[in-house]
Amino acid sequence: MSASGRRPGRRPGESGTREAIARAARRLFAERGYDRTTLRGVAAEAGVDPALVVHFFGSKQALFLSVVELPFEPAEALPEVLAGDRGAVGARFARFVVGVLEDPEARSRITGIVRAAASEPEAARVMRELLSGRIIGPLAEALGADDARLRATLVGSQVVGLVMARVVVGVEPLASLEPEALARAVTPTFQRYLVGPL
Amino acid sequence: MSASGRRPGRRPGESGTREAIARAARRLFAERGYDRTTLRGVAAEAGVDPALVVHFFGSKQALFLSVVELPFEPAEALPEVLAGDRGAVGARFARFVVGVLEDPEARSRITGIVRAAASEPEAARVMRELLSGRIIGPLAEALGADDARLRATLVGSQVVGLVMARVVVGVEPLASLEPEALARAVTPTFQRYLVGPL
Repeated sequence: MSASGRRPGRRPGESGTREAIARAARRLFAERGYDRTTLRGVAAEAGVDPALVVHFFGSKQALFLSVVELPFEPAEALPEVLAGDRGAVGARFARFVVGVLEDPEARSRITGIVRAAASEPEAARVMRELLSGRIIGPLAEALGADDARLRATLVGSQVVGLVMARVVVGVEPLASLEPEALARAVTPTFQRYLVGPL
Repeated sequence: MSASGRRPGRRPGESGTREAIARAARRLFAERGYDRTTLRGVAAEAGVDPALVVHFFGSKQALFLSVVELPFEPAEALPEVLAGDRGAVGARFARFVVGVLEDPEARSRITGIVRAAASEPEAARVMRELLSGRIIGPLAEALGADDARLRATLVGSQVVGLVMARVVVGVEPLASLEPEALARAVTPTFQRYLVGPL
């Protein structure tokens, strides 16, 4: 894409460049982690000028938040999981989480996110925004209780712990436990964090 | 320390050198993370020849496992926490974990360990050994049930999740929840993972 002939509004090719930068960024964040990925490196990988990366995405944090792909769309998935019989919400949520962790593509995305979160203080701050805005927020809203955000963060703590134990570190016997048995084992935890007495 | 005049057995000065290498390694692992710490870098930091690091500790993994300091000594602490009334074991365990996370030195050690675990596949493998040998093992032994190792890993998943949510990422309102309230919120989870029906 040429930077000449620039006019207001979207030009043909602009969305293609933006998408090429996004793809390059996703690849580098996944391969190198958050802290070792630079805007300059992303630009080189996408074959564009670094100024274009800044033009489209602003800062490295904004770039990460724009291109990170969650393993599912919380604002769509969570209300569905939480709808219906509240007495079985823990079981539905546990099956949902364990199911997501069985999918190789989802495993890889969620591992990348957890790795980035643990990598360094700046990444943790970015992750806090991501979690608050895109996961804790929708979950708390779907729950609708006064203490919904606390409940959502407790749920999140057990989910992240399962990701670490089952996927990132892989501690046995939890790592290779049958999905159904794992879902059963964590169902009462999610049931109480979601709707039980705290 | 000079490498000349080598004789079998421990010489005066040998334990001092070993300890200087261990201190340098702890500092670098904490500052740079597992994957960016090298045996050569540790040697330089300690002011010794890289061959001496290999002589005392072997591989980078073995060095990490030798020098990592847990926030508490599981083989001592866990049997104490688990002794006594089994009906209140979840409450005792929850208070113990939340208490450890309140101590700044322990927070820093545990954050370093979790960061290392999440950093890259090799580090995850080292962490698996550390967790299995020094935490899951003693916890399972103290529990003594047939499914003790599964129980210990479920407990570990919730502990790691709390570390991530409260310390590493710091998601509110969980991050600044009063220790007593947090311990109450997670008590039934630990109670069931430790001794309840799975």
